[in-house]
Amino acid sequence: MNVMPKLVDHEHRRTEIAAAAARLIAERGIDAVTMVAIGEAAGVTTGAVTHYFSSKDEIILAALRWADDAMQTRTERASQKSGDVLSVILEALPTDKASRIEWLVWGVFCDRATRSKALMAEQRSRNEEWLAFAEGILRRMKEDGELDPSLDLALEAKLAVAFIDGLGLHAASDPKSWPDLEQRRVVAHYLERLEPQKEGR
Amino acid sequence: MNVMPKLVDHEHRRTEIAAAAARLIAERGIDAVTMVAIGEAAGVTTGAVTHYFSSKDEIILAALRWADDAMQTRTERASQKSGDVLSVILEALPTDKASRIEWLVWGVFCDRATRSKALMAEQRSRNEEWLAFAEGILRRMKEDGELDPSLDLALEAKLAVAFIDGLGLHAASDPKSWPDLEQRRVVAHYLERLEPQKEGR
Repeated sequence: MNVMPKLVDHEHRRTEIAAAAARLIAERGIDAVTMVAIGEAAGVTTGAVTHYFSSKDEIILAALRWADDAMQTRTERASQKSGDVLSVILEALPTDKASRIEWLVWGVFCDRATRSKALMAEQRSRNEEWLAFAEGILRRMKEDGELDPSLDLALEAKLAVAFIDGLGLHAASDPKSWPDLEQRRVVAHYLERLEPQKEGR
Repeated sequence: MNVMPKLVDHEHRRTEIAAAAARLIAERGIDAVTMVAIGEAAGVTTGAVTHYFSSKDEIILAALRWADDAMQTRTERASQKSGDVLSVILEALPTDKASRIEWLVWGVFCDRATRSKALMAEQRSRNEEWLAFAEGILRRMKEDGELDPSLDLALEAKLAVAFIDGLGLHAASDPKSWPDLEQRRVVAHYLERLEPQKEGR
């Protein structure tokens, strides 16, 4: 007997529900999101939603994981494909509808995590992953002579993640004030200052 | 007939309700906040709450104004008292319970503003005030020879506000990972790089 197709199907359905929840959280707000509404959005019964998720916090956790996984996949792919750090950061930022949902879910999650140990643990581990990713990129830049050699990479990674998270939340919340080109301009400005200082400048 | 005391009393009561709403939003989450709970927290009747605020969005707007006013008052006072930019920024950041509430309310507001024209208008005008404040500080630093003279002040202000907002939200959401000293260390690192480049470095 081959059980694989069923397992895959379960994982697939769980992910579909998490994605639908993420969209709903971003579009209608967390207080309007119910098990019934998530079922409707995912095209499954309310019973199916409660089968996979026993509480609202569990769904929020799954929605955050779905959103953060999507962002990590995009940025890691961009990072492997090209040495251009600006492109990698722009892959993370909210420059289209899908990435905007990811940022809005993260914003809601930051708030919810203050009242849930499970959400807080997830937030910390995700944040550590982003800090390690940023530090890895900075290390590569340093090895390539693109950074001031005296720069503290761990400290710079914290600055970078705070900056990009602030920019991402602003741009996701108010996309009209933050067209793609404006996000690009501010990130390019940040990166320029990381360059090694030229003598006599 | 002197109506002034009554007017003052109304304004005072409205502010008390807004402050109570801000605390509740930060402590219990926006979806748990009701008119009844706000009345209880502010020590007034539910009728008094609905007398001053006709909807949840109106209360959220008042809570954001209360939080942002508090933050602006503190930072402007610090800015007038001292030329030390690090101290001014630390006045804004979530280094105690009161300022942490302000940041959590702002985070919730970023999400709600995406679904309300009134909240979005307020978010934009508040953000412009912070950008102008940051640019003013940067201009003073430039005049005092503390900045690279070629720096684009408006662009740097956008970077600074994004960075500080990202840091503030991270630190408010997860204070254990962001003790005061760690917030100070990252801000000091940001400010150091703004200093004019020394020749031959």
